[in-house]
Parts: sequence; C-alpha cells; structure tokens
Amino acid sequence: MIQLDFKKSGGLIPAIVQDALTGQVLMLAYMNQAAFEKTLETKKATYYSRSRNQLWTKGESSGHVQHVKEIRVDCDLDSVVLKVEQAGQGACHKGYRSCFYRAVDGNDLKVVDPRVFDPEKVYK
Amino acid sequence: MIQLDFKKSGGLIPAIVQDALTGQVLMLAYMNQAAFEKTLETKKATYYSRSRNQLWTKGESSGHVQHVKEIRVDCDLDSVVLKVEQAGQGACHKGYRSCFYRAVDGNDLKVVDPRVFDPEKVYK
Repeated sequence: MIQLDFKKSGGLIPAIVQDALTGQVLMLAYMNQAAFEKTLETKKATYYSRSRNQLWTKGESSGHVQHVKEIRVDCDLDSVVLKVEQAGQGACHKGYRSCFYRAVDGNDLKVVDPRVFDPEKVYK
Repeated sequence: MIQLDFKKSGGLIPAIVQDALTGQVLMLAYMNQAAFEKTLETKKATYYSRSRNQLWTKGESSGHVQHVKEIRVDCDLDSVVLKVEQAGQGACHKGYRSCFYRAVDGNDLKVVDPRVFDPEKVYK
C-alpha cells in the first residue's frame, strides 16, 4: 500500500488538479487518507472539505465529476497531482474552467479567463 | 494591494509551480505574506520553508532559480499558481525536472520521469 505523509500537515495533503489533456491547473483541494483511498478505488476525485469537515466527491452536486487518469506523487510524499478528465464545463464554483481565473496585474487581480457556465444554474 | 487569505491555513498558502512553457507541474511549495511580496518584487520565486522556518528563494544553493512569468490566484484567495521559467535542469532536489516524478501504479509508486541531474553535484 502507498504510504503518503499525511502527518506533516495535520492529516491533509494538497492535491493539485490538472486537466489531463491540456495541462491547465484546474483547482487545488485537500485529501486525507480516506479521500485518497476512495479516489484510488473509484477513479473519481474525492477530497476532504475543510469547511464542511467531510469527504466530498467533486461533481456530486454539479455533475462536474473529475475522472482520474493518473496520480503523481511528489518526492516528499506530501502532495499529489491528479490528472483528470473534467466532466461538464468547468471545475470552479464561480463558473470558470479553472479556479485560477485571475492573474496578478500590478497591485490588483485581473480576470483573464472567460466564464463558461452560470453557477446559479449548476449549483442549486 | 492584493490581499490573500493566509489566515485560513495558519499563515501559509500552497503555491503550485508550473513550467510556463510546457505546463508541467514542477513542485508545490508554501508562501507566507513576506514570501509572496518578495516574489512580486523580485520576480524570483521565494517560498517559506516549513522545515527551516525561514524564507527560501528557490535556486539560492542550486542555481535553479525560478523566474516568475505570471501569478494566478484562485477563487478563494488561498492558493496560487506560479508560471515560471525554470533555470537549470530541474526543480526537484532528487535530480528530476519535477518533484512529481512518480506515478501511482497499482499498490506502488513507479518512477516515470528521467533523472536529469546529479543532486550531489548541485546541492553541496
């Protein structure tokens, strides 16, 4: 069994979610051991929600499931990259393909990606 | 000034480091407010080392500096993507281009990337 270092950060490791086809970074979420195991087992990305304190399979309310094609693990065993096929239009609950839709522009943030769906219609 | 949410995770936010040209995820590190500001100011990626409890400019011992071309910020203001031009052969202290050089393969991890430098020669 693969042993990741969940202890270093209090039980959670960051999971970088990357579009398997384009390489775009879609989001960052957190996993505990149970989320990691469920992801391995189901091949659907499952995280640990720090705000709701529970496991959370991405797409369970939006339908925007992330089908996991590959999991990479870093040298220190304390972070992972999930290469996923993103179902639906996007990963971000604000209506963008990626949560990283803003760029630093001088002293401000500037929206640099297009909005691809209406979150009010997707998240009910 | 850009206000990121450093409080949520005890003062540190994860920084995903991505090759600006290829989209490869090179590493994940952490930033506090000072590291973020120094990175903005110098355009060289500077992190907060959790093991050494100090700011750490990537490449200061190896020469493998990361020249920051773009910074993306996520919807919750609690993680960033740095798009960088990686100096030298790689980002990983184990001698690989990326720290994520291993993939989950059944119940094991398998090295799937080539080693590109000898860390004993680079990190003295």
